[in-house]
Amino acid sequence: MEQHALPIANLIDQLSKLPGIGRKTAQRLAFYILEMEKLEAEKLSSSILEAKEKIKFCSICQNLTDKDPCHICQNEKRDKSVICVLEGAKDILAMERSREYKGQYHILHGLISPMDNIGPDDIKIRELLDRLADEQVEEIIVATNPTVEGEATALYLSRLIKPIGIKVTRIAHGIPVGGDLDYFDEVTISKAMENRREI
Amino acid sequence: MEQHALPIANLIDQLSKLPGIGRKTAQRLAFYILEMEKLEAEKLSSSILEAKEKIKFCSICQNLTDKDPCHICQNEKRDKSVICVLEGAKDILAMERSREYKGQYHILHGLISPMDNIGPDDIKIRELLDRLADEQVEEIIVATNPTVEGEATALYLSRLIKPIGIKVTRIAHGIPVGGDLDYFDEVTISKAMENRREI
Repeated sequence: MEQHALPIANLIDQLSKLPGIGRKTAQRLAFYILEMEKLEAEKLSSSILEAKEKIKFCSICQNLTDKDPCHICQNEKRDKSVICVLEGAKDILAMERSREYKGQYHILHGLISPMDNIGPDDIKIRELLDRLADEQVEEIIVATNPTVEGEATALYLSRLIKPIGIKVTRIAHGIPVGGDLDYFDEVTISKAMENRREI
Repeated sequence: MEQHALPIANLIDQLSKLPGIGRKTAQRLAFYILEMEKLEAEKLSSSILEAKEKIKFCSICQNLTDKDPCHICQNEKRDKSVICVLEGAKDILAMERSREYKGQYHILHGLISPMDNIGPDDIKIRELLDRLADEQVEEIIVATNPTVEGEATALYLSRLIKPIGIKVTRIAHGIPVGGDLDYFDEVTISKAMENRREI
């Protein structure tokens, strides 16, 4: 058993909760933080608090933003007739990098996953339906990742929204099954958008 | 250019200053933090501040500790006649894992590196010399890493301390136990050859 002073052990614990940060990396980061200038460590600490305090969900698309509505929903030049549905806020960055898509977004903040006890009411589907009533939406592009949960969510949305008379499409499987949107280049993402098909 | 809200961009900046955390990983961590429970994010933030506030240098060995002297310096069972000199506080963990060494430690918090403008006065060498006057030390084991800076620091310490009449030794460098010759660089192999001993 390694003997860490309590505040060090606690810092390591907290850091190792982050994704992709194992015990060993957390330890390395903790010691680095302890050797940092005090001011720098304070900046790191406060940037976490500040981001949590100032960043809210956009009341329209549920994107993470410090202004409400977010800069994309506020942008008058963007096509109001298409909504691209994404799993998480970081997927917007990947979509925007492709410079192809000029419509709106909707962030689900999760995917339907019965295995993890996440049902349709646990993600932002209700908020998506509300938008369909208000806005002149013609097409919903479901751009969730091609995983089991991503496909299940896409299918669920299609069954829910098609009866309203709105076209529901799915981005093409140019992205390998099991992959993550965030990791692919703009060309792959453009292709996948171009080859979207009705579901 | 990616459009992040300012507090998100700031959080990514701060995270990407950590060692081994690139831009992409910092972005992934930032979004993870933003999606975390608020309480969890607050715990992460405060664990950084708390560690910085409560953890000080041990007045004897310069180890990071919340008690002064640290638990190793306080331990009466440890051999006061040997001091193992290390680059950083995390190296103590590696040494203690071996369960072999029962002496004292001294943490330099850096290595002499003229390239980075780090001289002998910028690391805890003065504090080491002070201990030699007070204590009944017979041997100094320099266990800095076998890098250019680690070797330079070891040589500097040896020249400084030997004239006082204290033995200065260097840990052996060679092929790690279980290692394969084929995987190690020429410097390691040269070292291993140089330090060969009769069997």
